[in-house]
Amino acid sequence: MAIVTIIGAGMMGTALCWPLYDNKHTVRLVGTHLDQEIIQSIQADGIHPKLQRAIPDGVQAFYSTELETAMQGADVILNGVSSFGTDWFAQQAGPYLRPEVPVLAVTKGLQVLPNGDVQPLPDYINHQLPVDLQNTISFNAIAGPCIAHELAARRQTCVVFCGRDDNSLKQLKDVFSTPYYHIWTSYDLKEIEICAALKNGYALAVGMIIGMSDRAGTDGLANMYNPQAAIFAQSCIEMQILIKALGGNEKHVTWLPGAGDLYVTVYGGRTRKLGQLLGQGHNTEDALEMMSDVTLESVEIIARTAEALKLLEASKRIELKQFPLLCFLNDVLHHHQPVDIPWDDFFPEGAGRFPFTPNRVNE
Amino acid sequence: MAIVTIIGAGMMGTALCWPLYDNKHTVRLVGTHLDQEIIQSIQADGIHPKLQRAIPDGVQAFYSTELETAMQGADVILNGVSSFGTDWFAQQAGPYLRPEVPVLAVTKGLQVLPNGDVQPLPDYINHQLPVDLQNTISFNAIAGPCIAHELAARRQTCVVFCGRDDNSLKQLKDVFSTPYYHIWTSYDLKEIEICAALKNGYALAVGMIIGMSDRAGTDGLANMYNPQAAIFAQSCIEMQILIKALGGNEKHVTWLPGAGDLYVTVYGGRTRKLGQLLGQGHNTEDALEMMSDVTLESVEIIARTAEALKLLEASKRIELKQFPLLCFLNDVLHHHQPVDIPWDDFFPEGAGRFPFTPNRVNE
Repeated sequence: MAIVTIIGAGMMGTALCWPLYDNKHTVRLVGTHLDQEIIQSIQADGIHPKLQRAIPDGVQAFYSTELETAMQGADVILNGVSSFGTDWFAQQAGPYLRPEVPVLAVTKGLQVLPNGDVQPLPDYINHQLPVDLQNTISFNAIAGPCIAHELAARRQTCVVFCGRDDNSLKQLKDVFSTPYYHIWTSYDLKEIEICAALKNGYALAVGMIIGMSDRAGTDGLANMYNPQAAIFAQSCIEMQILIKALGGNEKHVTWLPGAGDLYVTVYGGRTRKLGQLLGQGHNTEDALEMMSDVTLESVEIIARTAEALKLLEASKRIELKQFPLLCFLNDVLHHHQPVDIPWDDFFPEGAGRFPFTPNRVNE
Repeated sequence: MAIVTIIGAGMMGTALCWPLYDNKHTVRLVGTHLDQEIIQSIQADGIHPKLQRAIPDGVQAFYSTELETAMQGADVILNGVSSFGTDWFAQQAGPYLRPEVPVLAVTKGLQVLPNGDVQPLPDYINHQLPVDLQNTISFNAIAGPCIAHELAARRQTCVVFCGRDDNSLKQLKDVFSTPYYHIWTSYDLKEIEICAALKNGYALAVGMIIGMSDRAGTDGLANMYNPQAAIFAQSCIEMQILIKALGGNEKHVTWLPGAGDLYVTVYGGRTRKLGQLLGQGHNTEDALEMMSDVTLESVEIIARTAEALKLLEASKRIELKQFPLLCFLNDVLHHHQPVDIPWDDFFPEGAGRFPFTPNRVNE
């Protein structure tokens, strides 16, 4: 049996208590400095206030001040800290990481490099570690469709663990697999992380349609799934173009990490909700204000991706016109543009680096 | 202005009245022999009983006995007949087709050839035409996410018109495009038709999950979107593998015709409903009985695809283990197997012809 320390008591990290408990591992859940109330609640009556569920028996909850103790002797470290806490993780937990202890992150985020390339969070964290630990830690990440509430209810869930070390991936798969938590593995960390991060941004667009349909109301038997589906398709295309432009295997968009995760995020909670508010007609400031109590990674993802796209266009690796949806999202969120979707700019003809040449009819 | 004759008064064909009317074309809607009540209703008070909506002014409705009149002088023929009526279309309408009059089909269906290859319906129809018309008709097809009710409500909709003739595709795009009906074009008729047909089968599986969650009930805040998303991802993978094995461009799965259309079909009506009944626990016979009043193309698609897979495996072009979801669906529908999804058979490792080599960890 393994000792697994989950760092960060957010919903997703905490949801992993269930497969760990079912596999009879020892689980320690340590909050960040932002998780005081959560840890308090768990210590009081075992209930995670956001999951609204009692966590499994035997899971020990620790405050952030007890981080070193919680990590002591762990066989696996689960990084459940949101992307905004990446630096905190690197600085606070970093020194206690060990080469023989694989790290598995649920975090979705991207760092943009000066040339427009994107750096997965594990690599970003690596550079902040104490020098003697740099390049010694096995960093891995989870991607794929997994709503935390559902994993905590032991719903059938299929995910991908990605990393660079064979033994770590085998070990992690063994530690976490259950009859309801199915794990596939891959070495393609970068592109899978890109999918995991980007889908948050694109799910916002689907949420906007939902909001627009709230506003319009149903028209007889007509809802607005046609536009949602078109957005879904354009999202898949843009993710493929970006990954391909960055030298990655774009086919990961077409299964669990891309399409699968995008599908589930539409149903999730926060990203959809923000999109909905925007689609309903609230301006960006108001919408963000209404959601100020939750972590909104989608807004950050869109900003960073837009930044990456500008840099990539400058170095001629992409053309902005290949990303009408991402540019639209950025314009709405950061440049006060109205929610007026540029449908005719989608699936651009003649963009050259479209992921496939569908032998388009020339206009 | 063009004269457009829509053959078959089903919901999808009829929904195309709206863009045609908005573009000021003359529209004739002629029913098949199964559409008597629909045509009666339209002639009486303009209401299409299934769309539950008054069709646009000026659309002339004809009974099937008036087919020749309705087709006389048409500039465009829209084939709105379901796949089950393909032979009827070929025999009844076939003789009145003209080389200068493009045919645009909404029909989704597949014919399986003896070697396991699949033949798009247009080609199947072509072979049934009077000899002097064979290979002279411009056949085209629509694919992509389009719920009929929504098009009739002028919701934003993005589709692909596919065919083999440049001029026809340009003309059709011009005839049908509106500010809400956005059209892209492609020559890749076969693979796009495969997506259009297959997605019906796979949407059934997503419907099953919805039924299973009806049965299980929500568990606190947990629904069953994780398994839906996993099914969605596996569907995308299987469609890609099949298309690639048949020599087509599998990337069409990754935008409107595959992922987009699959997304919308989950929300549609009939396929989801049948899947739901099965997921809720009804046996196949009862479920089909409960839905005996509607056209169920998904069941037929699954049977034909399973047949194609057997033939393709015999000729070593695929392995059945690459298609666990399709095989499962076929087993449930046609071999009395229980709704017990083979999650661990998904995304098979070592299947050799997986659409990409994700550098899987060897077990």
